Order: sequence, then C-alpha cells, then structure tokens
Amino acid sequence: MKPVVSIIMGSTSDLPVMEKAARFLDEMEIPFEINALSAHRTPEAVEEFATNAERNGIKVIIAAAGMAAHLPGVIASMTPVPVIGVPVNASLQGMDALLAIVQMPPGIPVATVGINASLNAAILALQMIATGDAALMAKLKNYKQGLKNKITKANEELAAVSFKYKTN
Amino acid sequence: MKPVVSIIMGSTSDLPVMEKAARFLDEMEIPFEINALSAHRTPEAVEEFATNAERNGIKVIIAAAGMAAHLPGVIASMTPVPVIGVPVNASLQGMDALLAIVQMPPGIPVATVGINASLNAAILALQMIATGDAALMAKLKNYKQGLKNKITKANEELAAVSFKYKTN
Amino acid sequence: MKPVVSIIMGSTSDLPVMEKAARFLDEMEIPFEINALSAHRTPEAVEEFATNAERNGIKVIIAAAGMAAHLPGVIASMTPVPVIGVPVNASLQGMDALLAIVQMPPGIPVATVGINASLNAAILALQMIATGDAALMAKLKNYKQGLKNKITKANEELAAVSFKYKTN
Amino acid sequence: MKPVVSIIMGSTSDLPVMEKAARFLDEMEIPFEINALSAHRTPEAVEEFATNAERNGIKVIIAAAGMAAHLPGVIASMTPVPVIGVPVNASLQGMDALLAIVQMPPGIPVATVGINASLNAAILALQMIATGDAALMAKLKNYKQGLKNKITKANEELAAVSFKYKTN
Amino acid sequence: MKPVVSIIMGSTSDLPVMEKAARFLDEMEIPFEINALSAHRTPEAVEEFATNAERNGIKVIIAAAGMAAHLPGVIASMTPVPVIGVPVNASLQGMDALLAIVQMPPGIPVATVGINASLNAAILALQMIATGDAALMAKLKNYKQGLKNKITKANEELAAVSFKYKTN
Amino acid sequence: MKPVVSIIMGSTSDLPVMEKAARFLDEMEIPFEINALSAHRTPEAVEEFATNAERNGIKVIIAAAGMAAHLPGVIASMTPVPVIGVPVNASLQGMDALLAIVQMPPGIPVATVGINASLNAAILALQMIATGDAALMAKLKNYKQGLKNKITKANEELAAVSFKYKTN
Amino acid sequence: MKPVVSIIMGSTSDLPVMEKAARFLDEMEIPFEINALSAHRTPEAVEEFATNAERNGIKVIIAAAGMAAHLPGVIASMTPVPVIGVPVNASLQGMDALLAIVQMPPGIPVATVGINASLNAAILALQMIATGDAALMAKLKNYKQGLKNKITKANEELAAVSFKYKTN
Amino acid sequence: MKPVVSIIMGSTSDLPVMEKAARFLDEMEIPFEINALSAHRTPEAVEEFATNAERNGIKVIIAAAGMAAHLPGVIASMTPVPVIGVPVNASLQGMDALLAIVQMPPGIPVATVGINASLNAAILALQMIATGDAALMAKLKNYKQGLKNKITKANEELAAVSFKYKTN
Repeated sequence: MKPVVSIIMGSTSDLPVMEKAARFLDEMEIPFEINALSAHRTPEAVEEFATNAERNGIKVIIAAAGMAAHLPGVIASMTPVPVIGVPVNASLQGMDALLAIVQMPPGIPVATVGINASLNAAILALQMIATGDAALMAKLKNYKQGLKNKITKANEELAAVSFKYKTN
Repeated sequence: MKPVVSIIMGSTSDLPVMEKAARFLDEMEIPFEINALSAHRTPEAVEEFATNAERNGIKVIIAAAGMAAHLPGVIASMTPVPVIGVPVNASLQGMDALLAIVQMPPGIPVATVGINASLNAAILALQMIATGDAALMAKLKNYKQGLKNKITKANEELAAVSFKYKTN
Repeated sequence: MKPVVSIIMGSTSDLPVMEKAARFLDEMEIPFEINALSAHRTPEAVEEFATNAERNGIKVIIAAAGMAAHLPGVIASMTPVPVIGVPVNASLQGMDALLAIVQMPPGIPVATVGINASLNAAILALQMIATGDAALMAKLKNYKQGLKNKITKANEELAAVSFKYKTN
Repeated sequence: MKPVVSIIMGSTSDLPVMEKAARFLDEMEIPFEINALSAHRTPEAVEEFATNAERNGIKVIIAAAGMAAHLPGVIASMTPVPVIGVPVNASLQGMDALLAIVQMPPGIPVATVGINASLNAAILALQMIATGDAALMAKLKNYKQGLKNKITKANEELAAVSFKYKTN
Repeated sequence: MKPVVSIIMGSTSDLPVMEKAARFLDEMEIPFEINALSAHRTPEAVEEFATNAERNGIKVIIAAAGMAAHLPGVIASMTPVPVIGVPVNASLQGMDALLAIVQMPPGIPVATVGINASLNAAILALQMIATGDAALMAKLKNYKQGLKNKITKANEELAAVSFKYKTN
Repeated sequence: MKPVVSIIMGSTSDLPVMEKAARFLDEMEIPFEINALSAHRTPEAVEEFATNAERNGIKVIIAAAGMAAHLPGVIASMTPVPVIGVPVNASLQGMDALLAIVQMPPGIPVATVGINASLNAAILALQMIATGDAALMAKLKNYKQGLKNKITKANEELAAVSFKYKTN
Repeated sequence: MKPVVSIIMGSTSDLPVMEKAARFLDEMEIPFEINALSAHRTPEAVEEFATNAERNGIKVIIAAAGMAAHLPGVIASMTPVPVIGVPVNASLQGMDALLAIVQMPPGIPVATVGINASLNAAILALQMIATGDAALMAKLKNYKQGLKNKITKANEELAAVSFKYKTN
Repeated sequence: MKPVVSIIMGSTSDLPVMEKAARFLDEMEIPFEINALSAHRTPEAVEEFATNAERNGIKVIIAAAGMAAHLPGVIASMTPVPVIGVPVNASLQGMDALLAIVQMPPGIPVATVGINASLNAAILALQMIATGDAALMAKLKNYKQGLKNKITKANEELAAVSFKYKTN
C-alpha cells in the first residue's frame, strides 16, 4: 500500500491539530503518510521529500506550520504536486501563519485552509484527487450528506429548548 | 470543446483581477468558461450552476469575491468539485475578503489563494486536475522551469547596476 | 401562536450566546422560533426557510454565525425581511465573523450588531417591528427606563466603596 | 409631507458618501430629511433631535460618522426609534468607525452596515418600515428583482470577452 | 472637602480596573469622587454631570469605558475641563475601546492613556493640575523618584539569579 | 515673552501635520516654541530639553512622532510636565505610532490624541493649563461655541441640497 | 571574566521570558550580564549603560520590552554596539511591542526577533560575534546540527502513531 | 576585492527599496554583492548561495522580500552567517512580510528591521561586522555623528517658521 496523501508537520506538537486530517483519511480509506519536516531545521530533508514526492506517487501534500510558516510554500516551490497549507495557531491567533502561507508570490500557489482547519485540508485533498477518480467522488458526496444530518440533530436539540413564547 | 475549469466572479469589475487566470488557462490550452454570479443577487443562479457543475464536466471552480466574500463558500457548499477562492481587494486591503473566504467551517473547505492572486488560482486549478492527468503534469513542470528564467534575467539586470564597492 | 421573530444559528454550540435573545423575546412576550440552519451544510434548508419567511409571517430574522459567517448574508439575499447578523466569537476574537457579516455588497444589507451581542439583536428586532406597532413601542420605552435603574444601583454600590480622599 | 426617515451626518464632507442613501429614498418615494449634527460639537442639538424623533414621526434614523464615531450610538441612547449606523472611512480605512459603531453595550443596539455603505443603510431602513407596511414591502421586492438584472448584464459583457480556450 | 478629580465609569464591573487610580489619588491626598454614568443608558445624567463639572470645582475628569467607548468623548463635548480616557479591555483586547476613545474629531480632544491604564490616568490628572499648583508638582517629582527605586530592587533580584557564565 | 507650550517634532517633515497646533496657539495668544528633537538621533538634546522644561516655564509639551514613536514617552520619562503625544501617520496608517505612544508602562503617562491630530493636541494643552488659569478657561469656552457654528453652517449647505422627497 | 553580551530587561517580570537566552549563552560558554533598566523609569541609568557599553567590552546588547517598548531603540540611539530587540507579550499579544521595536527611523536599527523569542535573540547575538570569531562560528554550526536531531526524534514519535491507512 | 556583505532580493522590482542599503555600503567602502534569488522560484540557487556563503567570505546577508516573505528565513536555515530581513511593502502595507520574516521558530533567528528599511539593514550589517573590526566601529561612530547634524539643520529650518506667538 503506497501513500497518495502526505501529511507534513513542523513538529509533533502539531499532531493534536492534524489528527482530524488523519482520521478523515482513514475513514475514507486513503493510504497516507505522516512526517515531521522543518523548513528551517531540516531544509535538506524537505528538499529530498518535495523533489521526490510526485515520483513516489504522492498526489497531494498537506503541510501544517505556525508562526512564520514557510513549510507549505517551500515545499510548493519544489514540486508540481498541489500543496494544501494549514496555518497553525501558535502565536498571534494564527494570523502570522495564515499570512505567511496564503500570500504566496505569483507562480507558486499554496491552497490555504482556515486556521487549525486540518479536517478541511484532508477533505480538500480528496476533492483534488477525486477530479480524476470517480469512485472517490462518490464517497465524498456520501460524506457531504452526513454533514446535513448533524444539522438535523441540532434542530432536534433546539426543539427541546423551552421558552414560554418559543413556538417550535 | 467543453470547459473543465469555471471562473466565477461577482461582477465585471473583478475582470481586471481575474484576467491573469484566463490568460494562463489559454496558454495551457485548457477549455474554461467565465461567468458573473452573485451569492447575494442571484442565489438561484448560483445554486443552479453549483449543483450541476460536476455533471457538466467541470473539474475545478475558481470563485473571486470581495468584501463579505460569500461566493466561494456558498458554491463549495453545493458541489463536491474543489473550489478555489480568490479574495479581491475591494475594501480593507482585502482582509475582509480573505477572512470571509478562508475561515470556512469544518466540512466545507475552500482552497484559498492570496489577495487578488488570480494567476495562482489558475495554476492551482491545473495542479489539481494534473493529479489525474500526466500530460498536464508535464506541462506544469515546463511552466515552473520558465519561472526560474525570470530570476536569471533579474540577475542580469542587477549585474548592470553599478556601485563603486559592488563586486558583481 | 405564530412566530414573528426567527432566530437561526449554525449549530447548537451557538445556543449559550443566543440564549439572551430568546430570554428578552420571552420577557417582551413576542412569539419566536429557534432553528439550526447552516449556510454551508444545509443550503437547501436555508433557501426553503428564507424564501418562505415573509409568507410565514416572520417580521425579522436574527442569524448568528462564526468564522466565515455567511449565514446572515445568504438569508438576506433570499428574503425582503430584515436580517440582523450576530457575529459569534469562534476564532480571531470574532473579527472574521464581524467582517464576513457587516461588509455586505450594495443591495443586500445585514443589520450587524456587536460580537456575541445577541441581546442587542433581539432589542433591535423589536425596534424594527415597533416602527409599525405602537403597543410594542411603549413596551420598549419601558424597558429602556429599566436600563437607567441599573446605573443607579451601580452608583449605590460605588457609594459604598471607601477611600480616604473619596468625597462621595 | 412629513419625513419618515432621517439622515444625520457629522459634517457636509460626509454628503458624497450619503448621497446614495438619499437617491434610493427618492427612488422609493419615501419622504426624508437630511441634517448635520455632531455628537461632539452640538450635543444639545443631537439631544433635541433624538428625544423628539419618534414624536415627529420618524420611523428610522440613519446616522453616518467617521473616526471615533459616536453619533449613531449617542442617538440610539436617546430614542426607541431604530438607528442604522454607517461607518465612514475617514481614517484607518474605516476600522475605527466600524468598531466605534458596532460594539455597542448591552441594551442599546445600533444596526451597523458596511464601511461607507449608505445605499445598504437606506435599503435596510425601508426593510424595517416594511415590517408594518405591505405596499412598501412590494416595492422592495421589485427593487431586489432589479439587482439580478445587473448580474445578467454583467454576463453579457463577459460573453463578449474573448480568449482562445474560453468556451462561452 | 470638595472633589477636584472625578472618576466616571460605565458600570461597577470597571471598578477593579479603576481602583489603582483611586488608590493613587488617595496616596497623593487629592479629593476625588467616583460615579457610574453611562453615555448610553443615562445620557441625561451624563449631561448634567458634564455641563456642571467646571462650576462644581472639578479640574480633571477621568472616564473609563470599554467596547464602543463613547463616555469620555461625550463628556468632553460638554465641558471645557480636560477629560482623560481609559480604554477598558472588554472585547477585542481593548482595541475597539482604544480607537473609539482616541480618534476624536478636530475640536474635542480626549487625553487617552493605555488599555486598562488607570494608574497612568490618575498620574496624568495630577500632572495637569500641577501646571498651576507648585506644591502638587513637588509631590509628583517625589513620586517619580520612587519609580526608580523599583528598578533598583529589580536589579537586586536579578543579581541573585545564578548562571555559570553570568558575570554580575 | 517666554513660551509656556513647547512643540517638539522629530523632523521638519512633521511640520505640515503640526502647523494646526501652532496656528491654534497663535489664535489663543499663547507663547510657544517649536523645535526638532529626535529621541534616536539627538538623545542628549532631548534629555537637556526635557530635564529643564519645567524650570524654563514650560507648562505642557506636545511631542509628535511617527513609526516606532519613542519621543513623547522618552520626554515624559524625564519631566513632571504633562506630555501630549501626537502619533504621526508615516507608515501602517499610523497604527505603529499610536501603539508606541499610548501603551506606556505604569508610572509614565503620555496624553495621547488621534493620529495626526495636532489641533486636538493644542486644544488639550490649553485645557490643561486652564485648570489653573480662569482667563484661559473663558477663551476656551468661547472657542467651543465657534465649533457649533460650523455645524449650523453645514446644515445651511445641506438645506440647499435638493431631492424630490427631501422634506427640509 | 568580562561580559561580552548584555541582557537588559524592563523588570524582573520579564525574566521567565528571557531565561532561555541566558541558558543558551551559558551552554555556549559566553560571559554575559543581566540587568533591569527602564527607558522610562531610569533614563539616566540607561544612558550610563548604553554610552559605556562598547568601552566596557560589550559586543552585543539584547534588550527586552513590552507594550510601548522603547528600551531597545533608546539604547540603540546611544551606542554603536548592535542591539537585538525582544518584543515581550504584555498586551495586545505583543503586537504593540513588536511595532514599537521594529519600526525604527532611518539611522538607528534594532535587530528585532519574534515575540517572546529570547532564545533566538541569544543565537543571533552569537552569530553577530562569530562574524569575527572563528571558534564561536564552529560552536554555532554544531548547535545547528542538534536542531536537526530534534526533528529526527519527532519522526520517530510520529512513526509510533497508528492509523489503519497510515503507511509509515 | 571580495564581498563581505551580500544583498539578496526576490526580484529587480525590490531594487528601488534596496538601493539605500547599497549606497550606504558604498559610502562606508564595504565590498558587497547584489543578487536576485527567489525562495520559491529558484530554491536550488538559494541553497547553493546560502550553504556556501560563509566559505565565500560573506559576513552578513541582507535579504529583502514581500508578501509571504520566506527568503530571509530560508537562507537563515542554511547558513550560520547572520541574516538581516527587510520586509518589503508589496501588499497589506507590509504587515504580511513583517510577520513572515520576524516570527521565526526557535533556533533560526532572522534580524528583522522595519518595513522597507533597507538603510537600517545596511547599518545593522556593519554594526555586526564591527563587533570584530575596530576600524569599522570608528567609521560607524562618525556616521552617527552626522545624523545629529540633520536634526540641527531641521531646527534652523524651524527657526525660520514664523508665528506671532512663537518665541524661537
């Protein structure tokens, strides 16, 4: 089983944020790998990973980083594989990481999701792969249906909330 | 020739920003369409577009919007096709549009690029499609090579800049 | 008893924020409903609610949302009924929600109140309805008088605070 | 003809921003007045206006202010008539005015619209009055229909934009 | 004993922030009063206070407020007595209150101090009065000397901190 | 004629901003001086000025600075004379200067006015001196009366603005 | 043993932030001193320290400050020795301190590191000294190697994290 | 003549910003080089430059970048030579570049100067080298003296500004 999605984070301290991405890929039965690589501490390892990612069969890379978050952009500069950036809230409520990831120069996009939004990163990864994979597309549609059920349940809970002039 | 990328913008005033996306798709010979749809003024048209996009063969949607930029997120909520959001600088230097696009709730990602970064949106769109299309991947690698040449030219220009203690 | 105010929230997790609105409507004896609807997870339900709100006798809609808060604007685009938006602090201290709600494009206003300010949303809702309802206007004036009494009590508490050179 | 909407601005320099509100009220045939009142320079005149507004038949007040924009909130504290606040961009891109208007304390809401968004303020004013006026509601629905036509025209313009691989 | 400094706050919940101001005035033996007045809930009481402050012998007013902090500016518009504004951190880390206090329009200044900086407000109040009171000026100089002693003590503590290569 | 107000600016480029302060002092017939001193380029000159200001009869100091605006705070640390800080918009719309001036540590207040608000600085200076000078207080009240007249004129201009449904 | 690096902080409350700098200098066997000096409370002591620093053999100064953080800039204005500024998060998440340190006027740079980033300040100090000290340069290279080992360990931890579709 | 300072910029469009750095180095007679290198477009060239910089005799690197400004941090991760980062204002007033440069993770500092502050970057570079070079230190002191003369001239200009009540 070879991984098609690669999750990269700067340190194990980002794991609690990124766990939701892993769990979603598991649920969708997509082989993936998780590695710690730092744009600043192990630049050679980042280079080795990024320049070989396509050849190794990786379809999408999810890179999480906080503060002056260079990791997603640095990887994106070394591979034609699409890179999804997850800004991690490590300081300034994540605004520094968001800007350091999303404001890439012309030519090297990073597909940025919300602050700490690792689940959305994983969903987006599958949406990208599903552009060329009809079976995966079907799975995704099924997942979306499930989101609606959550709201339905929320309404059942709200129905139980009682006010004198509440009519439903 | 059926479009595989769909560019959506809120009004024709966004065209100068989005033109670079169109020109890149042209250069890459990717069939695409451009339409004006407003999440707020034509919600039914947005719904019709979004719910049919996949069936119509659209692989990726690029949606540009400014201010309280709902268009990309609203489209993303109605289709499994990946949506790339381009925050347009119409007020507050584009910070309102950036936050209104990138901070999507769990379950509905929008792949956000930088403020006014329509070229990067188009490149990202092709990177997504290329996950399932080897010929396109080859084209993209070729394009990336061209980016390096720009830097080489920049260095030639800088070599011509003369200071007494400049050694190169 | 048919509701004249409709409170919409994205999930039950917004209930603690919105409870003050409900309690105020109760105190003012205004029939209201509370529902969970998500602009992103249940777009069809949002559409059904919004396009029928006026016909169903709803006079004002209060919509609460956090992050990329599209719910109030999306509803406003589908109904002539005035929509009051409550930005919920779910990230970035609520600045993302505030901008995503207040910066609406020309043609589709959302009456925005402060971050988490659900009580003010409910008061504003009644002020709107009272433009055409003299009895309700009288009730509102009465309520305003009560606000002054709080300040009077505050002064009594302060009078009890003792400093050597404090003269009152 | 007695005015039902009152537009208040801090100085005549705000007129270019507020003109769209006046033009919309004209188009809708709603009698209105425009006055310059300053929360800081003419507090007694503000008080006289606000405390008499309801008695004088004013249904909604639109108050525009920039910088430390106190005018809308000060008026709101003196009348049960709903007050719509328009933050004017006079410094800091209007962020100071937005926060000084929208972040009102519990009990005294101001219905805030976007920065410089005077047209939206006027539309919102009519939506409020229309909660008790069916004829006005009909007019508003008609106006909304017109907004869609703008988008249709935009699409015609976009259809004329020509790229080799553009398919529409 | 008639008060020469008046401390005004919007509610008793601001007392913990303003206590340092009271304690400093006590230490300096300056008669003062503390009252709760709300620009929004008791506008008439604010007016009565502000228009009579000078006549009642008040030399400086310290006004604390959070959120859309109108109190200092509203008071300043009704009296020639200098008003010191204390932005209280009640939301958005106090940025809303800071901007709503400091960005006053031409003609009506508010002497703004830092967020929650009530001690500095009281010191500034005395500096203002001391422009016409030599004895008070002498007291203030004495107080300033005390601030230096704190730093001297801090250095004694640091001298006790031990590192192998620390030389002092 | 000895100056009682001292205007300090970092460079002559701040003169256009500070001119309004000078003109107001002239109008009020208050002797003043203007000097360029830089907290960073001429620290000794700043020290000499600040430590002698009180002895030289200066009652209030107005210090203007942009960017990392240290001048007002540095002067305030060396004199018991009250210091009014004017944040100059030289970058980041003046937000850097505002925060660098207003957020002073406990013990050393700077009376901060709005960004570029030199007129307000001068008015505030006179309000401070007037706490001990009844004649000046009378002049200030007179000036305040003039501000109201501006608003009256604004209303005359607005009366001339013509809309069909405008009733005044 | 004479100190070559001098760590200055505004109060002992900054010690927990600055401890990492001290520990790093210890580990690198660089003699250093720690003192508390306040730009605002002890300006004469700051002056004495700064004007003598070079003569006393100090090669680099590390100055930490929060809020309106003037200390690094004030010291930099009085010595040719390079000054490293550490913005301390004491309010507004450290944004006020960051801007008050980094936005220095032309002529007086402060080498600014991240918010609370005292370890980076100490590393930077040694990098500066190592420009003229080959032995120290060798030590620094060794330290950098250690950073990579952390990442290697992180990967071992991640290898132990188990998901069904995780392939590494 | 071998360069000891290396100026790196992302594109020739940054040259107008960086010219002041070059001119200062010229004035100080310090051999330097200028090159265009992009962290994103030419990662291999960046790596080759950075890993060889020390061996090639470079003592300090000045790296300028805008937007998601990775260049200074990426270079810093590959060399023990100190790196000075210049945030270039290309969007969001340079706030994105400032945060992307200054908020580096522990272990890899970048000495950050103000937005567009290339002159300060060059001065700081020489201060770093002067820690091991007494002759350069003497030159720098001389330069600092010149800064004071500018202020003296500013005062002469201000002396010529005439107001009736201006006393100097």
